[in-house]
Amino acid sequence: MGRVAEKRPKALTFIRQKGEISRGDLAAELSLDKKTVSNLVEELFAESLIASAGFRDSIAGRRQELLTLNGSHSNFIGIDLGGTHIIGILADLNGRSLDRVFFEIRPGLAVEIILDQMKTICRKLMESKQASAPVRAIGICAPGFIDSATGTSIVAENIPGWQDVHLRDIFQKEFNRPVHAEDSSRAYALAEKWLGDGRGREDFLLTDLGYGIGMAIIVNGLLLRGAGNKSGEIGHTIVAPDGPLCSCGNHGCLEAVASGRAIARDAAAGIHAGRSGLLKGLTHGRAESVTAQDVAIAASMGDVFSTELLRAAGNLAGLALANAVNIINPSLLILGGGLIGTNRTMEECVARALATHCMKGIFKDLELRVSRLGIDGSALGCGILAAAEVLGPA
Amino acid sequence: MGRVAEKRPKALTFIRQKGEISRGDLAAELSLDKKTVSNLVEELFAESLIASAGFRDSIAGRRQELLTLNGSHSNFIGIDLGGTHIIGILADLNGRSLDRVFFEIRPGLAVEIILDQMKTICRKLMESKQASAPVRAIGICAPGFIDSATGTSIVAENIPGWQDVHLRDIFQKEFNRPVHAEDSSRAYALAEKWLGDGRGREDFLLTDLGYGIGMAIIVNGLLLRGAGNKSGEIGHTIVAPDGPLCSCGNHGCLEAVASGRAIARDAAAGIHAGRSGLLKGLTHGRAESVTAQDVAIAASMGDVFSTELLRAAGNLAGLALANAVNIINPSLLILGGGLIGTNRTMEECVARALATHCMKGIFKDLELRVSRLGIDGSALGCGILAAAEVLGPA
Repeated sequence: MGRVAEKRPKALTFIRQKGEISRGDLAAELSLDKKTVSNLVEELFAESLIASAGFRDSIAGRRQELLTLNGSHSNFIGIDLGGTHIIGILADLNGRSLDRVFFEIRPGLAVEIILDQMKTICRKLMESKQASAPVRAIGICAPGFIDSATGTSIVAENIPGWQDVHLRDIFQKEFNRPVHAEDSSRAYALAEKWLGDGRGREDFLLTDLGYGIGMAIIVNGLLLRGAGNKSGEIGHTIVAPDGPLCSCGNHGCLEAVASGRAIARDAAAGIHAGRSGLLKGLTHGRAESVTAQDVAIAASMGDVFSTELLRAAGNLAGLALANAVNIINPSLLILGGGLIGTNRTMEECVARALATHCMKGIFKDLELRVSRLGIDGSALGCGILAAAEVLGPA
Repeated sequence: MGRVAEKRPKALTFIRQKGEISRGDLAAELSLDKKTVSNLVEELFAESLIASAGFRDSIAGRRQELLTLNGSHSNFIGIDLGGTHIIGILADLNGRSLDRVFFEIRPGLAVEIILDQMKTICRKLMESKQASAPVRAIGICAPGFIDSATGTSIVAENIPGWQDVHLRDIFQKEFNRPVHAEDSSRAYALAEKWLGDGRGREDFLLTDLGYGIGMAIIVNGLLLRGAGNKSGEIGHTIVAPDGPLCSCGNHGCLEAVASGRAIARDAAAGIHAGRSGLLKGLTHGRAESVTAQDVAIAASMGDVFSTELLRAAGNLAGLALANAVNIINPSLLILGGGLIGTNRTMEECVARALATHCMKGIFKDLELRVSRLGIDGSALGCGILAAAEVLGPA
């Protein structure tokens, strides 16, 4: 039975991926005999984890029942703490979004207030009328280093004072549910693997270009975690050795020159220097309140200074990504995050920089996609992370 | 028997790694019962792949025979085509070097002459008096992209005219032995895994700082190959976007500013500009013949200009390596290649740049080592690669 128990998560993953599948195809995929698969399938039916999706005629002429994952078996909450927002998603067992709460937050908020906001979002989703089943578990992500074994957010460079926040303990106590915690970009990549362009892909890079800049690396179908679970820090690769001080303490990191935070900093300086009347107007003259979103909107409205800011950021992000691509040689790079989407300038500059700086032979292997999950990617990924509580390890 | 056949390469690897091991420990490691292990061991004895290394008393008081890999079972030739040298190694089944041939070559040699030199080296080793057994297979490495499935060296940016060279076919025909071909840095990393600081390590980076600059990435004990088998091109990550044209066609690649080739180019310009009397003397005034080795020697003799060249190269190599470390978060970085060893300037600058540019949390996880295999690393790795012919896939 040990071997069958081992196959259970694989069976559930396979049923989810295929959408609908017969017992015979499942047996073939899992290298199990028909009897064993039948027992496993009965077990999953008994637990309402799967449902019948009707019948089809097999080649031999017999009718085969098609199995499908029962999305309404259980619900999950995913919470993404970003630099400028907190997003909560209520998702079903298929990772389908049922409800969503979005809070914009101001950079520099106190840790306690942020945690209260996260709890409020979680509570709202817990009581959502869109729920299709009880909430079984909660997933949370934050930027920076996360100890996923203990569920501790060790440090988030972008949130002053945020250190050793025991997310798992705090939310487990508050909501009496299992809690999983992960790095934002890794949660995002998991969502791409379930729902986005990462489906069926064994190796891809996902980069999250937002208030901060992160990356997840998928190799041979698995997350490359790194020796200390800290891989993917493309935001702290150096693109301008003599550049500005970064929140990490080093100089010239990509995040210090091309993140939403850096763009907002440079935009504020530009407003002070009288370089953009439009940005000044958009912020009612309060230069310090300007955000990268304001810059993207101004650029879309034809503001030259704002467009220049986005171009400079896009070129440097593209340079750093080209370096990562030259090292890892992925078949797919997915661009996600708040800086991608509102305005196409960044995306175009990244694409051009990749073409310029990647080795020709390596660029040839590369497909570039803009995430279809948008800024909900990480929150969705957190919901999916929580679903492991029911589905078992992916 | 299928399962046992599968365990055979694992058994051989384990015996090699441990040096000496009892049947009982082998059974435990392979999760096989004693009877099955005994049969496997008898099979390996019958083929002379293993030998007895004497007896020891077990805890239970019984005498246990210790098994060891029989290095003299067969010999292998490894040939490393570098930018400024060809090195051939005759190795035994343990990867131990028995004989060595070193040819210095001038950059820009015709493809046919290079192939003739490689064949000459191979022939010399084939007839070596140091051989402990017949040569069973040959391993060859070259810089640039290698199609290891077909044994074709697709392109080596550093060797003009070198394109689609069918190394495997050419050497198989000439020497009537199985031939394996691989990228130089990957062969080097394999040698580190067998004989160097990579032993027992599941994740490390090996960088080859020489006439060209390459890297191999080991993750979860396996080589990260990349989607198109082209990973590790740290030499073509961009460290100076407005920098000089690289042999790959892009601008500002690490290789264009910090490789042995770039150092030689800058040294020649320095000699012309009268910046180093010592370098001029070392090259008898023929500035164009200056090599990075000359620069390293001059620096060791106190030449300020040469030291500056090595420092600039070391700083940029360290910057590029820090970026790779920030992305991959390895526990070990091994520095190898011709630019490391003669003079410690590069090594010191790389170490300092890593400390400066790595994220603190990631630098904490990192151990930095200078390769103990030196410039023989890749050739040794090729011998080991060829040993797979006898040992099976590692």
